[in-house]
Amino acid sequence: MRKAPQRGFDDAEFQVRCDRIQRNMSTAGIDVLWLTSEADVRYITGFLTQFWQSPTRPWHVLLPQTGKPVAVIPSIGLRCMQQTWVDDIRTWVAPNPNDDGVSLLIDTITELAGQSPRIGFPMAAETQVRCCWQDVAVLQNTLNSAQWVDATAAIRTVRQIKSSAELEKIAHICAVTSQAFSQVPLNIRIGMSEIDAFKAFKLSCLQAGADDPTYVVGKADADGYDDIISPPGQRAIRRGDVLILDTGCCFDGYYSDFDRNFAFDSVDDRTAIAHQRVWDATEFGMSLIKPGVSCEQIFYAMHNALRDGSTQNAADVGRLGHGLGMQLTETPSISAFDQTVLRAGMVITLEPGYSYAPGKVMVHEENLVITNDGARLLSERAPRDIPVI
Amino acid sequence: MRKAPQRGFDDAEFQVRCDRIQRNMSTAGIDVLWLTSEADVRYITGFLTQFWQSPTRPWHVLLPQTGKPVAVIPSIGLRCMQQTWVDDIRTWVAPNPNDDGVSLLIDTITELAGQSPRIGFPMAAETQVRCCWQDVAVLQNTLNSAQWVDATAAIRTVRQIKSSAELEKIAHICAVTSQAFSQVPLNIRIGMSEIDAFKAFKLSCLQAGADDPTYVVGKADADGYDDIISPPGQRAIRRGDVLILDTGCCFDGYYSDFDRNFAFDSVDDRTAIAHQRVWDATEFGMSLIKPGVSCEQIFYAMHNALRDGSTQNAADVGRLGHGLGMQLTETPSISAFDQTVLRAGMVITLEPGYSYAPGKVMVHEENLVITNDGARLLSERAPRDIPVI
Repeated sequence: MRKAPQRGFDDAEFQVRCDRIQRNMSTAGIDVLWLTSEADVRYITGFLTQFWQSPTRPWHVLLPQTGKPVAVIPSIGLRCMQQTWVDDIRTWVAPNPNDDGVSLLIDTITELAGQSPRIGFPMAAETQVRCCWQDVAVLQNTLNSAQWVDATAAIRTVRQIKSSAELEKIAHICAVTSQAFSQVPLNIRIGMSEIDAFKAFKLSCLQAGADDPTYVVGKADADGYDDIISPPGQRAIRRGDVLILDTGCCFDGYYSDFDRNFAFDSVDDRTAIAHQRVWDATEFGMSLIKPGVSCEQIFYAMHNALRDGSTQNAADVGRLGHGLGMQLTETPSISAFDQTVLRAGMVITLEPGYSYAPGKVMVHEENLVITNDGARLLSERAPRDIPVI
Repeated sequence: MRKAPQRGFDDAEFQVRCDRIQRNMSTAGIDVLWLTSEADVRYITGFLTQFWQSPTRPWHVLLPQTGKPVAVIPSIGLRCMQQTWVDDIRTWVAPNPNDDGVSLLIDTITELAGQSPRIGFPMAAETQVRCCWQDVAVLQNTLNSAQWVDATAAIRTVRQIKSSAELEKIAHICAVTSQAFSQVPLNIRIGMSEIDAFKAFKLSCLQAGADDPTYVVGKADADGYDDIISPPGQRAIRRGDVLILDTGCCFDGYYSDFDRNFAFDSVDDRTAIAHQRVWDATEFGMSLIKPGVSCEQIFYAMHNALRDGSTQNAADVGRLGHGLGMQLTETPSISAFDQTVLRAGMVITLEPGYSYAPGKVMVHEENLVITNDGARLLSERAPRDIPVI
């Protein structure tokens, strides 16, 4: 098993993150930032727990214009939060349907930012407010002289640039996932059900060093597949099948996200060519990547490479890649609509999809980090020719 | 490995679920139900995918007053949704920051329920709207003659009563998890780090038949622990440690959720007695459970059993158990505030926690289903005396 990097982060890392966000808050005129989602809360506090899987309790963290974050959380999380760099932790006994921390949250907001605060929280695409609608209504009705400001960009632009410690974790889990993929030809065979094949892969991921093989989806089908988000089924893998395994593994709260394709026994020409085509599109995309290039530019370059004068089109799932880090998918999107300029320290996936026959799509994905003068692969590059098991 | 029950559900099951919810909608005067969360969407459609882990794309399902649900989803999910019983699937190419399905959603709501619809969605505790704030604002501003009604109870009361097919899945994953726990004395030893111990347990869960060991948290510490939601750390297990492993494993989208405690080499008297006490409280709770008894009654009975005249208190994490099924934690709560009356087919956990010394808590948990005349254990009952490895 690969040697794992150190878990957690130094307090200085959280200080830098908060400083940067606070500068953005100042520019946007935000007095206090209100965060409720797992990734945002973890980003500024270090609060790492799988307990977010329980939808029962809301969790709140407030970042004032200066100083450390203040946690307003259920008492069940006190010990876990005490292990972070956060000093000011306020708890209530949750769940409490009469007042599930809302009055404590309101008091804390008022204490930090006054009676007429400008409260920022993420409102734009890819964000969610992780507490119930009724609680938000109480918050807004009670703080009726507050202004509510979209803080999506204030935190997103900071989160997009990964620190060296973050990069180490992502590089590690990508290497672990690559190692697990290298075991596929040894562990997955014709005759296995998809369910058993996926299970063998999950075991490989854990054994290779993943904390969790959190996301394992895909499909095996004759001469190719057309569905890349379904769970595995009972169907046994047959000669002539093409299998896609798409995975997001997790190490210390950071994700890999890439897929690999495998053919069984033999591969037909269309499938073989489709694999080369998405591989080439990825290669082309990578060759163009450097700081200063926009996501939109990479998208169109890859999109055109996939079309290549033919009537067959790039599979349209809205984008050809995305950011990666504390979440399986993050901003930016490698898409026609995203003018985000790539900067050193961003981690992205390139994920071209190619519809090469009715009901047949080939999706290929790699993970990479933007460097000062280009890009560095984090996943072990797939072979150009689809492997045949 | 145990023989697994059939995956998925017959269409008739979804029909029954929708019929029941539609009766509740009719009572509440709801014209159309708008669902956005993984569990609610899956409950009425059967749409099962890990893709929800990506926060990028919103997913909407509408349930009219009569007829089947209508899906308004990103095109990437079309094939997966086509495999469900849903016929009417409307897609858009997502992500699209200019209109991420909102106009398609509005058109569909209007088509199903007219220009002044009464739109129900879950607003109360333990629910979340899983799309961004800006999209909700557009929805509400555009549908400005709509009325918005809390639909939490309309769906929750139906989801709380599990069908026989659901019970089979939950019973299976509880049995699988029990089998994984039975391997702990063979696989976890003094000297292993928490991380390695948890990994060994996750491997056991997969090998025993879990699709995913989704939730594995806990702690090992000298003479007892005080934190039950943290991820494992580097600390090696020592003689005299008490380890809690709390897990939620998943099979076909249904969860187990129970913990087990283990001592290493020896156990001190306080710890031994604390384990007996939470075990006895669970036994007492189970003996009282039958249809017609309220959650509040079970809570107070167990709470008093834990206090037992001493100054030591039940650990206050808000409740002593909860519902279980498609989510790791569901309603109702075994708590002082929950007057929900237990009914046959409900699946709950009993989870008494006991603070027996400063910084030392003992938490014990079992899973059970309410039957016509009592309760039936789904987890294999823990021994009254904490096992010593």
